[in-house]
Amino acid sequence: MERVFDLDAVLAEVRRALEAGRIDEAVRLLSDQRPADLVEVFEELEDEEQVDLLPRLEVEDSADVLEYMDDLEAADLADELTDADLARIIDEMEPDEAADLLGDLEPERRRTILAQLEDPDEIRPLLLYDDETAGGRMTSDVLVLRRRMTVADALQAVRTTAPSPSAETLYYLYVVDRDGRLVGVTCLYDLLRADARALIADIMSSDVISVRADVDQEQVARLMTRYSLLSAPVVGYGDVLLGVITHDDLLDVMEQEATEDIQRQGAMQPLDRNYLDTPALTVARKRAGWLLLLFFTGTLTSRVLQAFEAELAAVVSLAFFIPLLIGTGGNAGAQTTSTIIRSLALGEIDLDDAWHVLWHELRVGMLLGLIVGVIGFGLALFWETQFSVAQAVALALLAIVVWANAVGSLLPLLATRLHIDPALVSNPLMSTLVDATGLLIYLQIAKVILEL
Amino acid sequence: MERVFDLDAVLAEVRRALEAGRIDEAVRLLSDQRPADLVEVFEELEDEEQVDLLPRLEVEDSADVLEYMDDLEAADLADELTDADLARIIDEMEPDEAADLLGDLEPERRRTILAQLEDPDEIRPLLLYDDETAGGRMTSDVLVLRRRMTVADALQAVRTTAPSPSAETLYYLYVVDRDGRLVGVTCLYDLLRADARALIADIMSSDVISVRADVDQEQVARLMTRYSLLSAPVVGYGDVLLGVITHDDLLDVMEQEATEDIQRQGAMQPLDRNYLDTPALTVARKRAGWLLLLFFTGTLTSRVLQAFEAELAAVVSLAFFIPLLIGTGGNAGAQTTSTIIRSLALGEIDLDDAWHVLWHELRVGMLLGLIVGVIGFGLALFWETQFSVAQAVALALLAIVVWANAVGSLLPLLATRLHIDPALVSNPLMSTLVDATGLLIYLQIAKVILEL
Repeated sequence: MERVFDLDAVLAEVRRALEAGRIDEAVRLLSDQRPADLVEVFEELEDEEQVDLLPRLEVEDSADVLEYMDDLEAADLADELTDADLARIIDEMEPDEAADLLGDLEPERRRTILAQLEDPDEIRPLLLYDDETAGGRMTSDVLVLRRRMTVADALQAVRTTAPSPSAETLYYLYVVDRDGRLVGVTCLYDLLRADARALIADIMSSDVISVRADVDQEQVARLMTRYSLLSAPVVGYGDVLLGVITHDDLLDVMEQEATEDIQRQGAMQPLDRNYLDTPALTVARKRAGWLLLLFFTGTLTSRVLQAFEAELAAVVSLAFFIPLLIGTGGNAGAQTTSTIIRSLALGEIDLDDAWHVLWHELRVGMLLGLIVGVIGFGLALFWETQFSVAQAVALALLAIVVWANAVGSLLPLLATRLHIDPALVSNPLMSTLVDATGLLIYLQIAKVILEL
Repeated sequence: MERVFDLDAVLAEVRRALEAGRIDEAVRLLSDQRPADLVEVFEELEDEEQVDLLPRLEVEDSADVLEYMDDLEAADLADELTDADLARIIDEMEPDEAADLLGDLEPERRRTILAQLEDPDEIRPLLLYDDETAGGRMTSDVLVLRRRMTVADALQAVRTTAPSPSAETLYYLYVVDRDGRLVGVTCLYDLLRADARALIADIMSSDVISVRADVDQEQVARLMTRYSLLSAPVVGYGDVLLGVITHDDLLDVMEQEATEDIQRQGAMQPLDRNYLDTPALTVARKRAGWLLLLFFTGTLTSRVLQAFEAELAAVVSLAFFIPLLIGTGGNAGAQTTSTIIRSLALGEIDLDDAWHVLWHELRVGMLLGLIVGVIGFGLALFWETQFSVAQAVALALLAIVVWANAVGSLLPLLATRLHIDPALVSNPLMSTLVDATGLLIYLQIAKVILEL
């Protein structure tokens, strides 16, 4: 396995070949690699080298490069190619990937290239769908069976289908009626085991799980994972089969969605590209919105402190515990939201469970609040603060942790209710909200206990 | 697609049947469902109902239940079954899932059950591996081909292999030599297209990607995703083929690893079970360690404040900005770690990129720090604080954001260097670290500017 990832040597050789002007050798070195490896090496080359080299690679390799690269980088590279070269490469790409790339080109150029393709009608319908829907992810290059075919006919059809790119879609074989409506599914393994003279209608399963073209890719991935599907058929109006989402698309979607959720947890808009290839200005822009929103929300803490100025001036030691208390509240809240957001994403809980979840988290909050409350009490006394300040700190810790758990569990559910992605309830958002409200809780408790 | 998830009606019917004592009807209702749906309905039943019903389901359905349930819940349920019932169900399970379940039983009971199985030798070797390694995930029930077989022989072998559970492993067919060493791979599609008289040795690809049994499941998933593999062969010493990791295992691993990363981001140990089925005490225990560690780290803020007591007493308005400043630092740090951790997980960056990443984040930090610094300056003036306090706030914001970005990018890389999972650098850890250090930066800057 080590060997597979050790591409530095290959890169060095390719570079040496290019510097010495031995383009053919560079092409050969690259085409000996597996597609994912080829692209990894290719991406390390300078932009001008990439533009020079791409049209000279074997056309299947060039197609792999544009398929595997991040969408926006592929589009940048495509912009540098001649129309003829680009059309030739796109003809070789999987239709869904080709449509994504064409969708990222200027409208003018897209029309020019489409006009030069061998089979534009395979791609044109895919341009209608958003990239991140079932329709945008599906491939339209699918072998379909008919009910009246025999098993022998079907096997013959499989044998005569061109290998790549369609081989991926062949493990499940979908059956349509004369109007193109999806009516059944079978698989290669069942075809092989069946009597050659049997009809497809007799061996197929008519209980097919399908998705509509406009369904979000995340839902498609959840469905395919739930039923361990190797591929899923995409249908349009009247259950007409439009295409198939394959295994590699599922893996892409799962990875992309997990990345987005993790980046959102950190309160930033997801990056569209590979991290180091994203300019600092773009990274800053993806973070600035949330950072500023949280900054303005955070100014509430200053207002709360100003409101309690007299109390703080009277008992200065109260101030020493402020960052500790609100920090602990933020941490407890972040722990809660992380759990709830993931449970929502996995479908372990839904809106109907709201009260159950709240009750669960209130008990967790009580347990954790009691523990940190007792420890906080001891610490405050140990630091020789007044007994009553220690009391206020302990009570406030309990109250803030319970409060943070309640907010942390309800906010993602509220977001779901409002049809907002619950992953937007990020850890920083939680801690900022708990900062201001926790401060209010603490100072209010202190005011009562210390009779200020 | 809606229909697929609407299981409430099924659950209600099953409940009615059980209450009326019509067990057969409940069994039939459940066995009409797809496995994932059957299990979802089954899990909603009361514990006693589950124990009663499980041995009476069709044995394939009982096996599905124990396979799809969370590991710990399946073990709880298994504890309630008789030895005979449990052995009968385990015989029907996929070997890898059976081994996981047996591994969760008491050693005494495990031995008893193993002795009653039809084919214990299929499972025994799997017990040697940790659940979360390639060896623990693989299935050992694999059809292998030999180089000297003809394509016709191979197709015949596929036809005569028992269908489920092994059908999943049949899309790629692995070829071994007489010592059981992995020497090649082919697939059903290639077999179908090849001349029936050709030898497997002539049509197979000898360039097989394999994993060793002791490799962590996360690495296996990364490899399978990278090369879009439907299954991956697992090998032991001398490249001997031990088993195969299938598509459904890959999906499980990807989901499980994403869950763990997201829960770790929120500073909690990953839960082993479905959220609502985890008792509040367990949830609290999974969070208490981090919460307390962060609490003790957070006490540093109190020490810093005590050290600057004189300065704070002299200019009270300095204190108003404390939560806002350290909160903003924590947010900027959380944004950075979320990006870096995910880039590390996807292999977009590695340790060699450390300086490049640091430089990237310093520039991002400068940009963001300048923006919030200017806004903070304006706000502080607007609130009628002294000009010099506003200066200190603005400078501190710039310094803290840059500092937070530096810490946020270097800590995950440092963790990687120390062979610790970088996902442990959670958002709460970041904000707690930035709380204390940010406070020090702010008060030190204020001290200099205000000449205190």
